Amino acid sequence: MTVADREREDGAAPIAVPIVDSPPDEQPVAWRHRHLLDVDVLSWADIELVMRTTDAMREVLARPIAKVPALRGRNVTILFYEASTRTRVSFEVAAKNLSADVVNIAAATSSVTKGESLVDTVRTVEALGAQTLVIRHATSGAPYLAADTFSGSVINGGDGWHAHPTQALLDLYTLRSRLPGEPGASLAGRKIAILGDVLHSRVARSNIWTLTAAGAELWLCGPATLLRGFDAWGVRGAAEGRRFHVTTSIADALRDADAVMALRIQKERMASGLLPSLREYAARYGLTRERLALARPHAVVLHPGPMNEGVEIAPDVAAGTQSLIEEQVRNGVAVRMALLYLLAGRQS
Amino acid sequence: MTVADREREDGAAPIAVPIVDSPPDEQPVAWRHRHLLDVDVLSWADIELVMRTTDAMREVLARPIAKVPALRGRNVTILFYEASTRTRVSFEVAAKNLSADVVNIAAATSSVTKGESLVDTVRTVEALGAQTLVIRHATSGAPYLAADTFSGSVINGGDGWHAHPTQALLDLYTLRSRLPGEPGASLAGRKIAILGDVLHSRVARSNIWTLTAAGAELWLCGPATLLRGFDAWGVRGAAEGRRFHVTTSIADALRDADAVMALRIQKERMASGLLPSLREYAARYGLTRERLALARPHAVVLHPGPMNEGVEIAPDVAAGTQSLIEEQVRNGVAVRMALLYLLAGRQS
Amino acid sequence: MTVADREREDGAAPIAVPIVDSPPDEQPVAWRHRHLLDVDVLSWADIELVMRTTDAMREVLARPIAKVPALRGRNVTILFYEASTRTRVSFEVAAKNLSADVVNIAAATSSVTKGESLVDTVRTVEALGAQTLVIRHATSGAPYLAADTFSGSVINGGDGWHAHPTQALLDLYTLRSRLPGEPGASLAGRKIAILGDVLHSRVARSNIWTLTAAGAELWLCGPATLLRGFDAWGVRGAAEGRRFHVTTSIADALRDADAVMALRIQKERMASGLLPSLREYAARYGLTRERLALARPHAVVLHPGPMNEGVEIAPDVAAGTQSLIEEQVRNGVAVRMALLYLLAGRQS
Repeated sequence: MTVADREREDGAAPIAVPIVDSPPDEQPVAWRHRHLLDVDVLSWADIELVMRTTDAMREVLARPIAKVPALRGRNVTILFYEASTRTRVSFEVAAKNLSADVVNIAAATSSVTKGESLVDTVRTVEALGAQTLVIRHATSGAPYLAADTFSGSVINGGDGWHAHPTQALLDLYTLRSRLPGEPGASLAGRKIAILGDVLHSRVARSNIWTLTAAGAELWLCGPATLLRGFDAWGVRGAAEGRRFHVTTSIADALRDADAVMALRIQKERMASGLLPSLREYAARYGLTRERLALARPHAVVLHPGPMNEGVEIAPDVAAGTQSLIEEQVRNGVAVRMALLYLLAGRQS
Repeated sequence: MTVADREREDGAAPIAVPIVDSPPDEQPVAWRHRHLLDVDVLSWADIELVMRTTDAMREVLARPIAKVPALRGRNVTILFYEASTRTRVSFEVAAKNLSADVVNIAAATSSVTKGESLVDTVRTVEALGAQTLVIRHATSGAPYLAADTFSGSVINGGDGWHAHPTQALLDLYTLRSRLPGEPGASLAGRKIAILGDVLHSRVARSNIWTLTAAGAELWLCGPATLLRGFDAWGVRGAAEGRRFHVTTSIADALRDADAVMALRIQKERMASGLLPSLREYAARYGLTRERLALARPHAVVLHPGPMNEGVEIAPDVAAGTQSLIEEQVRNGVAVRMALLYLLAGRQS
Repeated sequence: MTVADREREDGAAPIAVPIVDSPPDEQPVAWRHRHLLDVDVLSWADIELVMRTTDAMREVLARPIAKVPALRGRNVTILFYEASTRTRVSFEVAAKNLSADVVNIAAATSSVTKGESLVDTVRTVEALGAQTLVIRHATSGAPYLAADTFSGSVINGGDGWHAHPTQALLDLYTLRSRLPGEPGASLAGRKIAILGDVLHSRVARSNIWTLTAAGAELWLCGPATLLRGFDAWGVRGAAEGRRFHVTTSIADALRDADAVMALRIQKERMASGLLPSLREYAARYGLTRERLALARPHAVVLHPGPMNEGVEIAPDVAAGTQSLIEEQVRNGVAVRMALLYLLAGRQS
């Protein structure tokens, strides 16, 4: 029995999906979180609500005018201490599709931070009008510090090696809707491989949580130096019904997999001696067409982007028919619309 | 009798506060300035109109949807030759709350300026559609040059050491609403200390003007090297009823003060030999809890931000109950909404 | 007979100008292009439609609220691999005037591109919601590559030395409306000089196409090193009725000209030995008042900006009564509104 199944049995109430054309505070929505800092505090019912609300947002995105007035007048401030155009634009488009006002602050290069602590900056940003704060920071835990200070909602847009909850939720949504079989079907028993630099990856950490909760059989695979510590995690997770395996053998990880997620290799890892060279990494762990053939026939391929094509993933795999990489980006906007919407409803 | 009192007696007409939900050009508003380049050309009636319009904007900000359509379709271009996220965002949010369209140009790093004079840039920006131009520039007087060329309204967002009129107006609004006693009460006879690098501070220069006009008893305090020339100012100001004192003694400045404003110390001043070291500055002029105890019991603390905590202000003072620093930021948005609104009304 | 005349005779259907207050897909508009990559695929009827739609947009810009809801909810993404505030802001304002949502990506400094190919970036940008993509790139042909991948409309905002179609269309519009004589009159037989670094200029290349199609007598003038290859072009063009002359004599180029367009000199050309020095260039080819006197009495002056005043153009000429430089910027917004509108109509 998966974490999801057990929780579903516990709390049997049906999920009321909001009418996303209207403001969230005008309708009863069973969402109790003020912030989204990590996936580990979400119950399975919470996750289901995010998935169903994302369905509603995909429907909005398919309209000729892909815009609803739900968050009109709401100030969504995107405070990024790490550059990331892709994630920044995803949040920006999501907020604008809900008619919110967006303020972008590239704190990495910004004077907002000269001599200021994070707490002072968050206080200033709130006084400037921010109601939802999307924060990305190189330091694990920074969004928690922000949430302690900020009186609105904080969304973690990625913190250090720690968590990237919106990425995990969009990956879950993508897998559920696109794995071979019925759309929205359970991931229970599906074999999913995560490939690469698991150690330094907030994407991997957040995905481990949601995918094992969904009952997937997770395989973490990469060079031993980039998997350190995960064996112990696996043992602890098993106690509560989460199943994951740790291996340096890419053949073992890919054999009969339903899905493969390649992680981005950070070139700076080589300087620290954790990786021999990009060429050797590509030769041993790159996701090529030949290796993908080990997986099940219609296995799907994911990558959180941006890709180093020819390193962790071959160009023909990235652009191939099994790739869901653009679908992930598309779902990213819808999932973030859902989260901005749900968090705004909680507040008022 | 203060400058404010004298002016109030001269021009006795009551102030008609606009209905800020509607466009400013649809109602009679007694605002005659096309630009806001400095506070020194504002009559006391002008300042009162800004204060009352700011009250109306604070009321808008307190609404569930903090947005009015007053400036719909108006192009507000923010042309900053000096980086300043805080002031830029304040103007941006203010303009968006009035439904204006905002164009941000970070001229410091921008190609708009390659080989171009300021006058050419201003002409280009106007031809691109700018109707209100907010300009920040390291050279004193630059906004005047812009105003000579631009056919819309220019707002000075800070020029060199010269002026920062929106900061002075938000500081005045904050002091009037939060000094112990009745909200909106006169500042006549109140002792206010400005602490730090007065010499290089446009914030100080603009505040000296408005606060002495309001009848406050102003004390300027800092190392002698950072006060040069202000004695002569004080003598001249006294002739027209403005009262300020210049002192290097922080005890004299703070004793029984109603309000203390700490200025930001620019680290580059030390290179020029005007400051010994940050540590020595902090030791001699930093606003600590002990020093603040010299002031009146409920004295308030201001800082224009961003702060060097532990240098010109101690962290516990900045975050303490007497601090109005976040309130200043909050009022900054409302004051800028008021000014954008009033200037737009003048135009049409 | 000019290219324009010949085409006009061929396809005699009258041009239906759209009602630009309404969405383009709700009315029959004879626009068949999905992308605008260069002017060389536009028929004369296409160009006339752009000119007439620009007239309609100028009328919108003259309204008290210069905004129509035509592209409400449409995502216009501006992806610039080369910095250009002027062109970026022109597209941004144009899109906002049509009520579109604008996403700015400064790819030059952006993480969107780390390790990514242009094709991957375009796929990502589309998945993020882009419906119209404005791209500027230092490599000639890059927008064609983008158009191969992107399923919406691509507008070339300037690619390498190749093309700058929106600049050529705004220059054509400006010349037609402001050349001495009747507004909108034919350029047939008018003498127009293009002055400067023709070799490296996408502005020149695109203008050569449209102006010779319009029947103008074009003179290209500059140092021989910056005109290489254009003689051959002239010969080929003549075969289809296009007339242009190539000369190093500025007197020959300017004598009795109706219009003079000075090109921006790129300082980096000197390093490559193509130019002796800015001072010598200014002395031999700078557009001064004295030289302009060789042209016809009311000859007009254009420059695509940003200018190096005192190099390719004298300050008094740039700011003089014959200068249309600001008018070009103003028309740039209107032409881009027209193009965004027409391309959006084609799509649906």
